[in-house]
Amino acid sequence: MNALPLLGLPVAQRLREAAGANVRDLRDRGIAPKLAVVLATDNDATLWYVRSIARAAEKAGVECEIVDLGATAQAGEIAEALRRLSVDDTIHGIILQTPLPAGVSADGLAAEISVGKDIDGANPLSLGRLTAGLPAFAPATARAVVEILDHYEFPLAGKGVAVVGRSTVVGKPLLQLLLQRDATVTVCHSRSGPLERYTRDADVVVAAAGRAGLLTGRHVRAGAVVVDVGTNVEEDGQLVGDVDAESMGEVASALTPVPGGVGTVTTALLVLHTTEAALAQAGPRSLARSVPGGAGGNA
Amino acid sequence: MNALPLLGLPVAQRLREAAGANVRDLRDRGIAPKLAVVLATDNDATLWYVRSIARAAEKAGVECEIVDLGATAQAGEIAEALRRLSVDDTIHGIILQTPLPAGVSADGLAAEISVGKDIDGANPLSLGRLTAGLPAFAPATARAVVEILDHYEFPLAGKGVAVVGRSTVVGKPLLQLLLQRDATVTVCHSRSGPLERYTRDADVVVAAAGRAGLLTGRHVRAGAVVVDVGTNVEEDGQLVGDVDAESMGEVASALTPVPGGVGTVTTALLVLHTTEAALAQAGPRSLARSVPGGAGGNA
Repeated sequence: MNALPLLGLPVAQRLREAAGANVRDLRDRGIAPKLAVVLATDNDATLWYVRSIARAAEKAGVECEIVDLGATAQAGEIAEALRRLSVDDTIHGIILQTPLPAGVSADGLAAEISVGKDIDGANPLSLGRLTAGLPAFAPATARAVVEILDHYEFPLAGKGVAVVGRSTVVGKPLLQLLLQRDATVTVCHSRSGPLERYTRDADVVVAAAGRAGLLTGRHVRAGAVVVDVGTNVEEDGQLVGDVDAESMGEVASALTPVPGGVGTVTTALLVLHTTEAALAQAGPRSLARSVPGGAGGNA
Repeated sequence: MNALPLLGLPVAQRLREAAGANVRDLRDRGIAPKLAVVLATDNDATLWYVRSIARAAEKAGVECEIVDLGATAQAGEIAEALRRLSVDDTIHGIILQTPLPAGVSADGLAAEISVGKDIDGANPLSLGRLTAGLPAFAPATARAVVEILDHYEFPLAGKGVAVVGRSTVVGKPLLQLLLQRDATVTVCHSRSGPLERYTRDADVVVAAAGRAGLLTGRHVRAGAVVVDVGTNVEEDGQLVGDVDAESMGEVASALTPVPGGVGTVTTALLVLHTTEAALAQAGPRSLARSVPGGAGGNA
């Protein structure tokens, strides 16, 4: 194992500092930033994940309200909650947590989250605005990949990046973020045939397919940088990525661990996005209260 | 020149037949399908293009209203026209024609076009819905590329497709259509470095960069299928594509001509989309009037 481990913690720490500065700015202006998580499941792993978001938020001085509608909630109730939170001035960020009850689709419901509060980029309008280059929040996981590469100073402009996975929550928005940064992006997926046709040409490979051990050392060229977005729970409860870390470690020059890589950064970004949303909703500081270099903060 | 010329005309003819069938269905139900084109320029080439859309529409039995706001129109007037047309029940499709007056951006204005009438996929919400796999119209040019490949029976599933160009109107929506069809897609652009790194690996290459002669025979591998979306006007008024047809013709197995390729199909699709929008707005046929096999038509 020679690949440099790209730990999420130092990246998350820097993002937390940015969030902390935003929170101080907001408190100065009498604003208490607040995140709402809408929940309709009794899945243990999900409940654990939502509590970890709430803890991260509260540590940063961001309130977190968990709106638990129960595992039998109907689509109409969920839509109603999202509409209510969207017009509630005390709420600055909204997450619609998946999974939802059987038969309830997140796609249509996410359109009920107002774009300015859509801090996990779930509303199709957020995705369209992101694609068109208009201000919008990207899904936190997608942005986390770019934040890690930036933190460890791997340039993206002019590089070839292979994204394995075409989901609406990670692969597709990540592709837009990478194009914005002037990378050349190839989107591979389960129907691509042998993945190495594409991944072996790439300078950076992002695994976001949701299949444990899908990518091994033979899939990339020597010295490639590999980001593992996978979070697969094994039968024994262990969390593993989409990358076989052992064989990949022999070939790649750098690799994010799972756990401790992308996921750590994602949580920090949800909190940062909430503070950015609160700043944008507050509008520019009034002239009377402005400070030199005082931040605006936008999406 | 050995490459098979992929003419747009037979593809357009088939799409016109589909539009004609939709128009008959609509007339049976007392609906006169109607397209509105909002125009705010005195650019000759644009006026010529809009008149060609109007002629194609009228030939298919679709009315076309050109809403000419003049070359000095303000953003507010244009937005107002788009809002008015969006709520006008006699209008089924709306195009906001570019270029717009200096300082007026199409991006924000296109959000005023209701998604159900956004037959050229200009509203960022249409783009987001397309990306998320929800019903929405794709920009006609992007769909034209896929229609041509389908018509000439070039399969997309499992193929490697290089799209050269990352515009919001062609490259980005085309990428989504190709992913939906299980192609593996690489998006290249002006910052990609030598394009042949990516284009020589591809089974299908789509040139949509807006630079005359950008792609030559040395950019693709022998037997590649090449679609030329470029419409560049030379100093002598000649229309040329992004592909150098002479050198490409020696290497590619098939190539769309310019003019007579993608553009021909695009116009037919704008008309077809208008009839599809009208059918969707009309809703399902009432049981009393339904006919066996009667079409529904959707976006």
